Amino acid sequence: MLTLYTAPGTCALASHIALLDAGAEHKVIRVNFKTNEQRMPEYLAVNAKARVPSLVTPRGVLTETPAILAYIAQSYPAAKLAPLADPFAFAEAQAFNSYLCSTLHINHAHRMRGTRWVEPTDTEALAAMQRKVPKTVAECFALIEQTLFKGPWVLGADYSICDAYLFTVAQWMEGDSIDPNQFPKVYDHMQRMAERPAVKQAFAATAAPHS
Amino acid sequence: MLTLYTAPGTCALASHIALLDAGAEHKVIRVNFKTNEQRMPEYLAVNAKARVPSLVTPRGVLTETPAILAYIAQSYPAAKLAPLADPFAFAEAQAFNSYLCSTLHINHAHRMRGTRWVEPTDTEALAAMQRKVPKTVAECFALIEQTLFKGPWVLGADYSICDAYLFTVAQWMEGDSIDPNQFPKVYDHMQRMAERPAVKQAFAATAAPHS
Repeated sequence: MLTLYTAPGTCALASHIALLDAGAEHKVIRVNFKTNEQRMPEYLAVNAKARVPSLVTPRGVLTETPAILAYIAQSYPAAKLAPLADPFAFAEAQAFNSYLCSTLHINHAHRMRGTRWVEPTDTEALAAMQRKVPKTVAECFALIEQTLFKGPWVLGADYSICDAYLFTVAQWMEGDSIDPNQFPKVYDHMQRMAERPAVKQAFAATAAPHS
Repeated sequence: MLTLYTAPGTCALASHIALLDAGAEHKVIRVNFKTNEQRMPEYLAVNAKARVPSLVTPRGVLTETPAILAYIAQSYPAAKLAPLADPFAFAEAQAFNSYLCSTLHINHAHRMRGTRWVEPTDTEALAAMQRKVPKTVAECFALIEQTLFKGPWVLGADYSICDAYLFTVAQWMEGDSIDPNQFPKVYDHMQRMAERPAVKQAFAATAAPHS
C-alpha cells in the first residue's frame, strides 16, 4: 500500500494521476495548506521539506515529483508509463520532468512563493517577481510547444508519466495570466487529458473542502 | 562517442565527473559564458535552453543534470553509479538529485542569475534576492547534512552519481558566503571527492582559459 500526501492545486496532482494510471493500491491524504499543516511536526516527520508530494512506501518516504513519477513507472511496469528499457528514451522523459520541476515550476512559484527567495518585508522585490511570471512561464510553455512536445503525447506515440506532469503544470497557466490558446498543442493535450478517467478520479478525490 | 558541453563553475561538472567515473568514451567542449556563447545560434541548435550541460549522444541531445546522470549510470552499468535494479533506491537517488536541481541550485542562482525572475532594471529586487542566498542555500546544506546524506557516500555504502552532483554544488558554498565547516559531513565528503582521480581529471580538462 502506498500513501500519497497531496494538496489541491499543487504539483502533487501528477503523482496522483500516475498512481491511478498505474492501478496502484494507494490512499490519499490531503495536507491543508490554508492552516499551514505542511509545517506542523506531524507532517515534517513525513517530509522535512514541508512540501507535497510525499509518497509513503513500505520502504520509506519518497519526495520530489520526478523521482516519484519514475518510481511509479518502474514499480508498475505493466502500466507502461515510461520507456523503462531504453536508457536514452528514459533520459528524455526524465529531462522533460526535470525541466518542469526546476524551471517551469520555479518560474511559476515566483508569483505566490516569492518569500522563498527574498524576505517577506521586501515587498517591492515580491512585486517585481510577480510581474515577470507571465513572461517566464510562457517562455517555458513556448519551449514545450515548439521543441519538447512530440505529440500526440509528450514523448510521442505513447502516453507516459510526462503527460500527467505536463497536464498538472498546465493547470497553472490561467492563474499566471497566460492564455493557453497561444500553445495549441499543449491546450489540446490539456483537453484530452481532462477526459481521462484517472484525471477525473484524481480531481474528484481532492475536490471536497477540508472539514 | 559522447560529447559533453560544459563551462567551468557550472553544474555541468557533475556530468563530467560521472562520464569519467563511468569510463565513457567522450569529449568535452567548453562553452564560453563570458562571450555569451551559450546564446549563439550554434549552441542554441544543440540546446535551445541556452544552458549547460548538454550531452550529445548517438541518439540525440540530452539536457538536465538529473537526466544526464541517470543516463550515464544506466548506459554504463558496470561502473555501478546508481542502484539501478532497485526502484525504491533508484528513486531515492533521483529525489536527491532533483532536490539539488530544483531547490539548492535555484536558491544559489538567485545570487548571480536573478534576472531570470525579475527585469534587469529591478535592481532593488536583485539585491533583495542576493541578500537571502546565504540563508536559503545554507538551509539546503543543513537538510542534506542532517537528513539526506547517509554516509560515507550520499546514498550510504556505495558511491553514486549523487556524490558527483553534491560535490559540484558544494563548490558554490564559499561564493554564496557559506562556511563549509558548518556542515562537517558535506565538508568531509568534499575533501574525499577532491582526491578522486575522476574529479582531478575533470578540473584539469576545463582549467585552461579560453584562447
